[in-house]
Parts: sequence; C-alpha cells; structure tokens
Amino acid sequence: MDLLHSTLQQIKQVNNEVIEQAQVKVNGLLKPVGSLGILEEIAVQLCGIYGSTELKALKKAVVVCAGDHGIVEEGVTSAPQVVTALMTNFIADGKSGVGVIAKTMGADVIVVDVGVNADIDHPKVLNRKIKRGTNNLAKGSAMSREEAIKSLEVGIEVAKNLIDKGYNILATGEMGIGNTTPSSAIIAAFTGIEPIKLTGVGANLSEEGMIKKVKVIQAGLDVNKPDKNDAIDVLSKVGGLEIGAMAGVMLAGAANNIPILVDGFISTASAAIAIHLEPKVVDYLICSHTSAEKGAEVALSSLGFKPYLNMGLRLGEGSGAALTFPIVEASVNMINDMGTYAQAGIEVV
Amino acid sequence: MDLLHSTLQQIKQVNNEVIEQAQVKVNGLLKPVGSLGILEEIAVQLCGIYGSTELKALKKAVVVCAGDHGIVEEGVTSAPQVVTALMTNFIADGKSGVGVIAKTMGADVIVVDVGVNADIDHPKVLNRKIKRGTNNLAKGSAMSREEAIKSLEVGIEVAKNLIDKGYNILATGEMGIGNTTPSSAIIAAFTGIEPIKLTGVGANLSEEGMIKKVKVIQAGLDVNKPDKNDAIDVLSKVGGLEIGAMAGVMLAGAANNIPILVDGFISTASAAIAIHLEPKVVDYLICSHTSAEKGAEVALSSLGFKPYLNMGLRLGEGSGAALTFPIVEASVNMINDMGTYAQAGIEVV
Repeated sequence: MDLLHSTLQQIKQVNNEVIEQAQVKVNGLLKPVGSLGILEEIAVQLCGIYGSTELKALKKAVVVCAGDHGIVEEGVTSAPQVVTALMTNFIADGKSGVGVIAKTMGADVIVVDVGVNADIDHPKVLNRKIKRGTNNLAKGSAMSREEAIKSLEVGIEVAKNLIDKGYNILATGEMGIGNTTPSSAIIAAFTGIEPIKLTGVGANLSEEGMIKKVKVIQAGLDVNKPDKNDAIDVLSKVGGLEIGAMAGVMLAGAANNIPILVDGFISTASAAIAIHLEPKVVDYLICSHTSAEKGAEVALSSLGFKPYLNMGLRLGEGSGAALTFPIVEASVNMINDMGTYAQAGIEVV
Repeated sequence: MDLLHSTLQQIKQVNNEVIEQAQVKVNGLLKPVGSLGILEEIAVQLCGIYGSTELKALKKAVVVCAGDHGIVEEGVTSAPQVVTALMTNFIADGKSGVGVIAKTMGADVIVVDVGVNADIDHPKVLNRKIKRGTNNLAKGSAMSREEAIKSLEVGIEVAKNLIDKGYNILATGEMGIGNTTPSSAIIAAFTGIEPIKLTGVGANLSEEGMIKKVKVIQAGLDVNKPDKNDAIDVLSKVGGLEIGAMAGVMLAGAANNIPILVDGFISTASAAIAIHLEPKVVDYLICSHTSAEKGAEVALSSLGFKPYLNMGLRLGEGSGAALTFPIVEASVNMINDMGTYAQAGIEVV
C-alpha cells in the first residue's frame, strides 16, 4: 500500500503553462493552423507531460502483463486456460503479434507474469506472480483487496524500473484467456452501462458463449456489488491481476511524467481503474486504436478518449498500442523539426 | 500517348493464386483468426501485388507532385497562389509536414514540379513542368487533352525511375493551392454527387469562400460537361496537372507490381482518374487515412476504400500516406516473421 499511496501522491497536473507554449509553437509551424489534426494534439499533450516544448527521442517499450481468470470455468472463452501460459512464452520469444509489431517500431517488449495459472520458466518473463489466476468472479470476489493493491504495485514497480533505465514512453499490453469478461464488468461497474452493450466475441467466441458471457458478467456485478467510488473495490471484485498491473503502469507513468499508450479494450478497463484512482492520470494517457471488441468504443468514450486508428484489431498483447508508436514519434519530430512561418518570413495570420 | 498506352496495357490482375496462399499463411499465424484485422488484409493484398507470400523489406518514397490552378482567380482559396512555389521549395528542403513525417518513417521524398506557376530553382525538385498552372476550370477546360495525357506520363516516368532504383512502395502527395476544387469536381463528375457534399474548407477557407467554391465547381461541371466514361476528358476539363501526375504514379505502380499508398482527398481524386482509366488499378492501391476535408469520406467510399486512420489531417503533401508506411511495414513483418500454430504444435481449428 505504501508504494501505491506514494505513487498516487506523486501524480501532478500536467504542465499547463508548457501546453500553452506548445500550442503557440505548433501554430507557428509551416502549415495551415490545425491541419495536422491529432498529430498536433499529441505533440501538445507530450509537451505538457514532459514539461518542455523541446522533445527528446522516444525510447519505447510495451509492458505485457499476463494473468489467468477463474471465470474461464464458466465457459466464456473460445480458448482453454492453458493458452495464457503458452502465449506468455511466445510473446517473450518475440514470435507473437506484439513482438513483430514492436520490433517494426523499434520498441522493446517486457513480459510480466502477474498471475498465470502455470509455472512460467522463461528467462525473459519477469516473475511477479501474485496468485495462480483470479477466483471465479461470478461466484465471489476475483481477488482480495490486498491482492488487487499488490497487482497495481507490480505494475508501478516494473514501470518505474523501465523509466529508471531511460524508457520515456510505455505502452500497455496483456495476455490472459478470459480477460475481456472482467474488462466488461469493470466498465459496466463504473458506467452503469448494461453488460450486453459491453460484451464482445473476445477471441472468436460463439453466439452461445456470448449469451453465457453476458449472464456471467451480470452475475459478477450482482454477487459482488462493486463500489464504483472505490476503484480498488472494483478491481478486486470483478477485475484481474494483469488488469491491475497495467493500471499500475499507468499510475507510474503519470507519477514520473511519462506518457502511456493505451492499447485496446482490456487496457481501457485498466485505464478506467487508474483514472478512478487518480483523475489526473487521464492527461498522461494516449489513446491509440479502437479495437473490434464490441464494448471498445463505449469504453473509450466513457473516458473521453477519441481513438484515431480503426484497424479492426482484437488481438490484445499491446499490438494496437505498439502500432501507434510511430504516430507519436511523428508528433515529436513535427514539433522539433518542422520549419516555421518565421523561418519562411511569413507572418502567421 | 505511347507511354500511357503501353503502361495501361502492362497492368495485370493481381495474383489471385498467391492471394489465396497468403490468406492460408495468415490464418496459420499464432493468433485468433482475423484478430489482426486490416494488418492481415494489407499483408494479403501485398502478397497479391508482389506475387509472393515472402515479402521483401520496403524501400519507401513519397512522390509529391506540385502544380498550380487557374481557379484561384475566383477566390476559392485562403492562401495566394505564390504559396505553391514557396511550399514546393520547403518540401524539397525536408522542412514541411511530409518531410518530417517521411523522415520519421524512413521514407524518401521526391518532389516533382508538374505545373507550378513560377520558376522553381531547387536542386531537389524534378522539373517536369507542363505549363504554368491550369486554366480557370469555371470558364473552360483546365487544360488540353494532350496536357492531361502528358501529366499522367510525367507521373508514370517519375515512378518508373524510382521503381528501377529499387523503391518497392510509393505514396502519393501533392502541393497546389486551389487543388481541393478540381478534386471535388472530379469526384462529382464521376459519381454525380452534388458539389456541396464534396466541398470542404481546404486550408481553412471562410464560409463565404465555401459558398463561392461550390458555385465555381458547379460552373466548371456545367461549362465543361466532363464525360465520366472518359477519364482523360474529366482530368483535362476539371482536373489538375499534379492530380494527373499522381494518377500516373498509380498506373506505373500497378504496371510494375508495386503498391501505392493513397493520401487524402486530392490523392483520392487521382485514384478515381487512375481507376477509371484501368479498373484493375484499384487492387494496387492501399488506402490510408480519411482526411478532415469534407468530401473525403464520400470520395473514398465511392472507390470502395475503407480508411483506417482518422487523425483529422488536412495538410496534404502526402503526410497521411507517409504516416501509414509503418502500418504497412508491420503487415510485411507479420506475415514474414510471426510464429505459427504449426511451430507451436497446435492444430488450427
């Protein structure tokens, strides 16, 4: 709790004075004002986060948090639980979707076992296992309050280590068979939106499975009655270990003035936890894509995010966030290197 | 006409046999089938274009075609015509939006003067000037049929030279004050959609200017009566020199089995010209973003394109297409390097 508490206290408002200066700088670049759209918005946001209108080159990593879910015993997934461990190893080998995409973008991938229901013996997987998967949230709390706090602190600790090593932008990713179910439950708990509007096919679930999934999410909410004013209560009752860890990564980013790229639906659930713990976090998060998962758009808009990449992705692993790194890099280079009206001898109208 | 004719004859259907093999290969990658969405679609498309399921690393360039427009005398632009020449030089200096973005993505920028109404004296600008800007399309034909063919051939020649130098993917970009007006006119001519639905603010045009712009486009259509079954007629009567050259780049790409990334609204008008000259071209074009220009979405959907990047860009220059290069690269690396179900010892269901 000490680490969580001190991290939350460390989170300050982004630098609004620098944001104003950055907007002036962007408006002075040689192009019709506003014509680079979201690239301009990201550049200004980055300046506010880093506290400077001169941005450094990005050193990038995707933090992939892995955990299992007791809920799979209800038959709400198309893949068996063993796939979590199998894919965690594959991601660490760099052979999965996020590995290939991150390599394309010059980003490193860090894999953290927060709660896989198997022994992971891979030199590139950080062992931060809290327990072997959550409990079945349809029948009771997914984890204890202490375990939920611990999951947040795992994310904080891993992210802080990376930031200390010089990484200055992180993306969140996950692996956990069954984790769209707790993600839907988290968003439903915070927003009051009906589970059916937040429940998608995950990794190619059947229609029959979908009906079951909606019932299971509703059962989880009914049995646990998560308190939407207490994010740790929501996380512990209907969340997941890797979901907590990703929220922790976001908290550490905000506490250390580092932007965090949010991946798809499950990362959005983590963002909801982080923002409900500390609303200032939202300004440190950069939304990336809207996933094909049904609840994604609703979830994003509930947090005020406007996704700009719409590629029908629903792989998870941080793949969509990794795909967005070069867009953020273009924003950095835009504000650093583009010619200005002043250089061209033109007065800005 | 010989170069245009021989290029059109050279364009073959993309390789459908390879496309089927590529789809099988993509379905065997270690991820839920379809879960990488448009990344998968692009990978399969690339295989069909290149005729192989083993893709080479991309050598990338943006071809920026510059030209002026007689229509500016009607007061349909917020910037004066002199800005075309000024920005053409800036783009060649690498200091404009596309320069910074292309550099971020490891792409080269090639600038071609197809019809700027000024002498361009810059070592990095290819001089292929056909005439000093088009005529005012509201009062008659923007150019002669011969000039329109010449503009297409400029694009073909420039693109063919780049392909001979080893570039294996090209993006189109443009600079030409006033060129959203002919672009709207071209899309209106082909689709029959009313100009008002295809007319946007360009580079921050006033509302008064917008009303004038719609009238001017309608006048251009009424005076010239472009024949939608004759793409060269459309290009010559209501088009532009740089619009023709970009269409030529697309034709050369298709003729030489090279994909072309289509930028925003003006590039989409070029794509309409190219596709109406030879429908097979469409399979060689990769759509990138939907620009903030009002007619962009209508124009894209009229060609069957589904844009996946929605960043509110309206700069032109090829900036949106350049931003899309790493997405295409991720597709290449996905199909080349991702682990497979076979490697994991799992049977695909």
